Amino acid sequence: MLNIIHPDSAGVPAADRGLAYGDGLFETIRMRGRKAVLRSLHLDRMVADAGRLGIPVRRDDLDAEITRSGREAARRYGSDDWVLKLVLTRGVGGRGYRLPAECEPSLIVTSSAMPALPDPVGVVVALAQFPLTVNPRLAGIKTLNRLEQVMASSEFSGEEFELIMADTDGNLVEGTRTNLFVRLENEWITPPVQGLAVAGVMRQYALKCLRAAGHKVREQAIPPSLLSSPGLRGLYVLNSVIGVAPVRRMDGVDLPVDDGLETICDPLQTLE
Amino acid sequence: MLNIIHPDSAGVPAADRGLAYGDGLFETIRMRGRKAVLRSLHLDRMVADAGRLGIPVRRDDLDAEITRSGREAARRYGSDDWVLKLVLTRGVGGRGYRLPAECEPSLIVTSSAMPALPDPVGVVVALAQFPLTVNPRLAGIKTLNRLEQVMASSEFSGEEFELIMADTDGNLVEGTRTNLFVRLENEWITPPVQGLAVAGVMRQYALKCLRAAGHKVREQAIPPSLLSSPGLRGLYVLNSVIGVAPVRRMDGVDLPVDDGLETICDPLQTLE
Repeated sequence: MLNIIHPDSAGVPAADRGLAYGDGLFETIRMRGRKAVLRSLHLDRMVADAGRLGIPVRRDDLDAEITRSGREAARRYGSDDWVLKLVLTRGVGGRGYRLPAECEPSLIVTSSAMPALPDPVGVVVALAQFPLTVNPRLAGIKTLNRLEQVMASSEFSGEEFELIMADTDGNLVEGTRTNLFVRLENEWITPPVQGLAVAGVMRQYALKCLRAAGHKVREQAIPPSLLSSPGLRGLYVLNSVIGVAPVRRMDGVDLPVDDGLETICDPLQTLE
Repeated sequence: MLNIIHPDSAGVPAADRGLAYGDGLFETIRMRGRKAVLRSLHLDRMVADAGRLGIPVRRDDLDAEITRSGREAARRYGSDDWVLKLVLTRGVGGRGYRLPAECEPSLIVTSSAMPALPDPVGVVVALAQFPLTVNPRLAGIKTLNRLEQVMASSEFSGEEFELIMADTDGNLVEGTRTNLFVRLENEWITPPVQGLAVAGVMRQYALKCLRAAGHKVREQAIPPSLLSSPGLRGLYVLNSVIGVAPVRRMDGVDLPVDDGLETICDPLQTLE
């Protein structure tokens, strides 16, 4: 049975494995009134990744919760944009790290105001000193183990919209809350899922839009040197809440700004 | 201000960063009646590692909470052994991963019965297939990001007391809830802190006891081949709750059992 927790009415049990071990995952969904952006991709990812963690959940239950939350939040936000967060944990039980014999997951549902949208003429980013490590068996899953992103975020100095994290080989992997795309003369590059901490649904949507529009996209590592290659046309950070943001400066170096991706790929077209 | 949560009376706020991101750390302390095993080492570690994460906490506040919990639990457990868990999180606040301007940590205090102690003639272990990755900047900290240990624990088949996790190079690093020591003819080997997910206080205590007794201990990686070297005298798993357990079989292969470490290093001598 799925225990649904609406924090207006109750706290989360201290024994919940989401708190004890980060044993769970989450989705952060941009809403417009009652409708959700990239709804199907969010639902598909949460069900698939919960399956990888062995947390049973029915897609219909999550879908119904989006509908219910949308109806309720419409009273507060009207037709404005807001953000729905679904946290799914393995619930209470088990002995230490060991899984409970019968898993009764918790679904914690919260809403919040839209964050500031990025400047459409481009944002400023910097390289985080805090490195990113990815367990190959957890790659891409938006789990509740996000301490590396938190620690990297302590490096924000105010001007940056985002900090880019590199792996221990120095390759650029992703932002603290965004995925990366690089546009070169004849192709796009984005790091492959097996090296990602979080494989965002917006990344997935951008891949689909670019390929549908006839662009070539390669999934491969991004060495920092790629950003000083003569063929560079643009660097983008993206997620499903803020959409696509072109990067105009990284670590004090101006980058070319290309408005290609926002026009090819607009997640607001997917409201449902 | 430290918000102390005793789950008998209240749940944890859904917005607590411990739940949202695993943004915190914990100690699991063996108690005997009102007294704590390795009390000073636990307190020192929690304060030092909270400092590494930028979570402010006073040692005296934690110490007072051990005393208070001991007094209260004595009503339930008498002079028996039990386990005290202190979970310290960065509390509520901040925008996304970004840290709150003013950190008000949460301390969540729970007690539970002692787990079964290991068979003193030796335990059975197996190598987990799930690999361990360690961020060099978080090495050794018992953070709330423990999903790798949870996923490895799903491989328990019933007979094993512990599963040993290897890094992506194949070196044996630690158990899901224990650290490792190998005894050779003339020295002891334990993996160095910079490669550990959790640097247990019992590991620290064992290092101190061994060195005080004149033994040579080297901190270096443990390749699996070390366990078939002719000089092997024993493999141990240890933590501050169960103490020291010699391993008598790993992955179906019998290992020599040496009772050296339990006699050199008895954490119950440290009750205070």
